[in-house]
Amino acid sequence: MNIPLTPLRFLRYAEQQYPARTAIVCNQDRFTYAQFAGRVGRLAGALRQAGIQAGDRVAFLGANCHRLLEAYYGVPEAGAVLLPLNIRLAPDELAFILNDSGATILFVEKQFLGLVESFRKSLRTVKMFVQLDGSPDVPWLDPRNYDALLAAATPHRADISSIDENSLAELFYTSGTSANPKGVMLTHRNIYLHALNVCMGFQIENGAVELHTIPLFHANGWGVAHFLVLLGGKHVMIQRFETKEVFRLIETEKVHSCSLVPIMATALVNCPERRNYDLSTLRRIVIGGAASSPTLIREVEQQLGCECFSGYGLTETCPSLTISPMKSGLGWEGEQRYVGQAMTGYAFPGTEIRVVDADDRDVPRDGQAIGEIIARSDGVMEGYWRQPEASAEALRGGWFHTGDMATFNEEGYLLIVDRKKDIIVSGGENISSLELEKAILAHPAVLEAGVIPVPDEKWGEVPKALVVLKPNATASESELIEFCRARLSHYKCPRSVEFVDSLPKTGTGKILKKDLRKKYWQGKDTIRPDFGAPASKTKSGA
Amino acid sequence: MNIPLTPLRFLRYAEQQYPARTAIVCNQDRFTYAQFAGRVGRLAGALRQAGIQAGDRVAFLGANCHRLLEAYYGVPEAGAVLLPLNIRLAPDELAFILNDSGATILFVEKQFLGLVESFRKSLRTVKMFVQLDGSPDVPWLDPRNYDALLAAATPHRADISSIDENSLAELFYTSGTSANPKGVMLTHRNIYLHALNVCMGFQIENGAVELHTIPLFHANGWGVAHFLVLLGGKHVMIQRFETKEVFRLIETEKVHSCSLVPIMATALVNCPERRNYDLSTLRRIVIGGAASSPTLIREVEQQLGCECFSGYGLTETCPSLTISPMKSGLGWEGEQRYVGQAMTGYAFPGTEIRVVDADDRDVPRDGQAIGEIIARSDGVMEGYWRQPEASAEALRGGWFHTGDMATFNEEGYLLIVDRKKDIIVSGGENISSLELEKAILAHPAVLEAGVIPVPDEKWGEVPKALVVLKPNATASESELIEFCRARLSHYKCPRSVEFVDSLPKTGTGKILKKDLRKKYWQGKDTIRPDFGAPASKTKSGA
Repeated sequence: MNIPLTPLRFLRYAEQQYPARTAIVCNQDRFTYAQFAGRVGRLAGALRQAGIQAGDRVAFLGANCHRLLEAYYGVPEAGAVLLPLNIRLAPDELAFILNDSGATILFVEKQFLGLVESFRKSLRTVKMFVQLDGSPDVPWLDPRNYDALLAAATPHRADISSIDENSLAELFYTSGTSANPKGVMLTHRNIYLHALNVCMGFQIENGAVELHTIPLFHANGWGVAHFLVLLGGKHVMIQRFETKEVFRLIETEKVHSCSLVPIMATALVNCPERRNYDLSTLRRIVIGGAASSPTLIREVEQQLGCECFSGYGLTETCPSLTISPMKSGLGWEGEQRYVGQAMTGYAFPGTEIRVVDADDRDVPRDGQAIGEIIARSDGVMEGYWRQPEASAEALRGGWFHTGDMATFNEEGYLLIVDRKKDIIVSGGENISSLELEKAILAHPAVLEAGVIPVPDEKWGEVPKALVVLKPNATASESELIEFCRARLSHYKCPRSVEFVDSLPKTGTGKILKKDLRKKYWQGKDTIRPDFGAPASKTKSGA
Repeated sequence: MNIPLTPLRFLRYAEQQYPARTAIVCNQDRFTYAQFAGRVGRLAGALRQAGIQAGDRVAFLGANCHRLLEAYYGVPEAGAVLLPLNIRLAPDELAFILNDSGATILFVEKQFLGLVESFRKSLRTVKMFVQLDGSPDVPWLDPRNYDALLAAATPHRADISSIDENSLAELFYTSGTSANPKGVMLTHRNIYLHALNVCMGFQIENGAVELHTIPLFHANGWGVAHFLVLLGGKHVMIQRFETKEVFRLIETEKVHSCSLVPIMATALVNCPERRNYDLSTLRRIVIGGAASSPTLIREVEQQLGCECFSGYGLTETCPSLTISPMKSGLGWEGEQRYVGQAMTGYAFPGTEIRVVDADDRDVPRDGQAIGEIIARSDGVMEGYWRQPEASAEALRGGWFHTGDMATFNEEGYLLIVDRKKDIIVSGGENISSLELEKAILAHPAVLEAGVIPVPDEKWGEVPKALVVLKPNATASESELIEFCRARLSHYKCPRSVEFVDSLPKTGTGKILKKDLRKKYWQGKDTIRPDFGAPASKTKSGA
């Protein structure tokens, strides 16, 4: 018997088994699984009555809210494809995504009406705008808001057995630092199996209580959302990360777990008011989105009183690929355990990881050799929306190429050292620009540093550091090079240092190394190879 | 990305993630996951060198042993279909199964050579006989035993991506009390998804230690075998259930869990020597194969110091359908919890259960109305081997018809009350023959009782009891009827009682009701309807 694998089954199961359990807590609203499923059925009905047909894209622009979680089920229940939009994108990016995806309906929170107004006229496919909360009072909005549409709708339930498990359920756009955003196509089967794999990897308890600290429109937001429904867990929504509100919700709702980026975790451990709250229900905090540190892992464990480890994944992989708790039997003790749990981690069930050189040959699993992480798992996307060439490139040889450079050790733990495009290949050796930057930043006079490869006759390329000094501080080129040599292997150290007033950065504060490199590579016969399809990292990185 | 769902991935994952962990403990032998996977590769190679081709059936006849567990992976790794044989079957049944399946190789333990010799000449397809243990010294056996074949083999590894997940991986024959045994066809996908579903339902811990008290050739033996590999657990083999040996292995190997039939559980709680052993690592005992009782659940929990609940499933469903732990939030207390945990239980994740009348309409979910359990799950078989009609009948309407009659309550818990063919339908009411037998057996003079339907002009059929009295005990028909009426609803009570010297039974001690009924229904115009395809119950029942 083949029953299609679709996340809709998760909600069907929860509704059958746990109808009276609290499913969602969202500000003053609380919904049981029976109510949640009822609203999802009405959302699906409303979409069909609005003319949505199989495969149509339905966009949502909003912060964490029960309505966005309802969309995770209601949109596929209507046979359509959910397109959650990142509320932090620029107007032209949002317009690009809506046009590229061909979305026909856009649901939008009141607070983002002005944002939508700013690019609304450039939209080519959106025919209907629905306000999620409050009363619509601008003419381009449908006169009924989301709840009014639901109230008027005849519920619709998909016939599970007629669903094609390989059809699209969700479309998420990567942030795209070097090109236009690309739509990551996730099928019903991708999402179903990913949820099961993650659930087994994390060993999540039935009825778990999760605080959704990460936006649901982000990859590691939605990864949790699905398996938690299967387990009849409680979804606690938070719209804006604010330490005291986080503590209050943990105490009030008896939260078991949440996912954090490092800066959130740091804020929680540094917030003295945490002592005023009962955090004893906390069992697990997963740190992702950027590299963690052993110190941060230790501080979270000691000060919040729960297990803490790293997780890593990408939008293209649904997202989860690895986690870093200690495998039973390893016997890490003391600081060793924090070091291990700050690593990128080992593969989830259902997931295979390799670390390979430029020809896709495995590098030694010695914790030293650096290569690109490639992955094969049930969660790996079908491809990029309407980009067959970029899809084929990213998925060449049947493996997804993450663009993340890492070491791999005998115990199966990865440690990300750099993005592929930022790695420096000098005389055949891989040098991590991040490792080098970390070394330079340890010098007391240095405020910021960016390390890039520059062309070299003999070595192909060598590392160069661009450095911003602290106000009134001084340091010479040779002093900084010596400083690095005292800390790192000789071959890894910068051959030259250039002092600059500032470094070009993205809106989120990342150094634009592409721009830094340009000057040194322009007009060279040797073109620095471009490294495949850039993948968008969403959880732990380096 | 679609990666075929096959149990072979479980062992690949365990080998990658936990190569040095102990995978199997079997008498004096211990194997790590790396060794286990290595032997599996050599078994697959040996099978291919012996001429086994895709889809061929490979039979094993043996008790629990590391070699049978190796076969669970090595046979599908070679592209073939595993056929584990029940060592307790009669020679003609074994010969029928081997011929019906068309198996070409038979692996056999030394202790069963005489059994095989007794039917060997009637085998039409088996071309090669391999002894599993010891030295072959009869001419019809291959001169190399299992280990010698492995030692000589070139390892073979299937290319996972080329496996058709809907192809057969295992073929298990049901015991077939009323007809010839039927081969239950399980696909790679059935087995893969069943393992994930069960693993989530049980909430099994990574690295769990299981004592294989149930034979691996039984449905609930192999159900555990697969998810335990994915979790890198330790398989502790036991060849023969003997209480002190069970306790010794629990203590020595630090066992977490095991599955028991009620008679085994009773033996363990009644064994006074259990106090000499450290059983503190025990976390979970699952009782299946027959109905449990609240008393037994309580005794196991109190005397063995672990959680105890029921499980239910059938060969046709891979097997697990339900378990009976208390769902979080139910708040059962004291005796109520034991009563609940002795029920048949609620559906595993990935599983849908309904209780229906003869027209497949749901009966009220009130814990009173009796109907047939039908199920839809990822584990439900593809069908019966070469029996398209029986398959279509059992799977009609897209649901597997279990042949088990049960009540269903609001919390989603089933309670099996009878086999469908033993239920008595009197004036439209379903009467459980088992419930009635239990009432009669409570009378001090009664040794054995079998309740069957007999024809009745007015009611269609009415219950009749066939009773064997204890030596020197006496009781009259009216006395026994009155005894029942004091305990049960009037309409359920027997209309007549007949005293007999003995009741006809199967080899495993079950009363042959079919034979009892024959006499009363012969020559009647009203033929008692035959109830669909009989399904073989393997776990909890009534």
